[in-house]
Amino acid sequence: MTEQPPEVPSDVAEELLGLLACGEVFGFHTLADASARSSDISQAVRLMEMAVQHYDAYVRTRQRLLDGGADADAVIASHAEPLAAYFGRTRSADEFQALVKAYVGNGIAADFVREMSAVLDEDTRDFVHDVLSAPRTDEIVVPRLRAVIARDQAKAGPLALWGRRLMGEALSQAQRVAADRPELVALIVGKADLAGFQQMMARMTTSHSERMQALGLYA
Amino acid sequence: MTEQPPEVPSDVAEELLGLLACGEVFGFHTLADASARSSDISQAVRLMEMAVQHYDAYVRTRQRLLDGGADADAVIASHAEPLAAYFGRTRSADEFQALVKAYVGNGIAADFVREMSAVLDEDTRDFVHDVLSAPRTDEIVVPRLRAVIARDQAKAGPLALWGRRLMGEALSQAQRVAADRPELVALIVGKADLAGFQQMMARMTTSHSERMQALGLYA
Repeated sequence: MTEQPPEVPSDVAEELLGLLACGEVFGFHTLADASARSSDISQAVRLMEMAVQHYDAYVRTRQRLLDGGADADAVIASHAEPLAAYFGRTRSADEFQALVKAYVGNGIAADFVREMSAVLDEDTRDFVHDVLSAPRTDEIVVPRLRAVIARDQAKAGPLALWGRRLMGEALSQAQRVAADRPELVALIVGKADLAGFQQMMARMTTSHSERMQALGLYA
Repeated sequence: MTEQPPEVPSDVAEELLGLLACGEVFGFHTLADASARSSDISQAVRLMEMAVQHYDAYVRTRQRLLDGGADADAVIASHAEPLAAYFGRTRSADEFQALVKAYVGNGIAADFVREMSAVLDEDTRDFVHDVLSAPRTDEIVVPRLRAVIARDQAKAGPLALWGRRLMGEALSQAQRVAADRPELVALIVGKADLAGFQQMMARMTTSHSERMQALGLYA
């Protein structure tokens, strides 16, 4: 009872791994939707393979939770609500929105988890970064959308709007996660360190702008 | 040049394996959609696992095509159009339509390929049947939909209508496959053997009715 608590409680690692695993399920849904909306079968197959990489990431992360003695499914389920809300409010209407969501939307989610993983021990952090390193949706989405927009400039405006909406909905749900788990956020941004939080948001916004630019869209 | 052709030309096996592999991609899309529309995460995960079984079936079937010396991707792509047309015309609007499509729609497609596989050599036919044996969507869909309909009888009518529409669209695309590949159909139903074709349709209709009844719906 008199032991010093570890610098980062193990349940923070558990929380983040739970969020990561749950995010991989929604990453799977996003890629599978982009696959289903593909107008040619070879792109559909490549996106299906990327969806399965999200599934594999889910399985690995769940296994790590189990290995750490966690009630993995309960921890994962506890993160479903804000992710489901984001997903439900950003249903794609066509192939191009689905592709932007796969690259830009999943990119924001990965940035968020990567930022939060900074407080974890090195081994867990490396694991999280490794899980987040796949799939490389940019390899399909960037050339495909650049070609589409080059042929039809009128698509750029609505897709730029869509990208901004994805960012807005993601931030709105991230705030909800933060409000529901103040102890987690306090640990991550440092107690009363508003500057740290603002810097994190600035990094995420920069990273989002870079992805939008890669597509030839205004963030 | 004077050799007797084999009873069933090997390109028929190739055609059917191509149709099967392509069907598994669309099976993946259907299960992934049902997963994405699930209102709880544990059902979403189980349906995601079933979607991945379709992916695994696609990989196995494509490998078998490659092992047989086929230009697998070209053969698979040649079947995409009617399947994409079926898929595009039967987009689910909610979780329940998605579940019916996963069970009833994919069931019709599997029956069709199973029927056509009757003309193949035993080894290939066994392979096709084995590939078609998973996933067991009934294990999720039947109890879930029966419970939903028991709670709200008003859902039964629209879902029965949806099930009949899936059958209608599937038959319409099957006729297109038949019209595009008369030599395949001639081989399968026996030349000028209309009775054989009608029997096959009768078996498929019976099997469809059994699935609808399992859900407590009128076929």
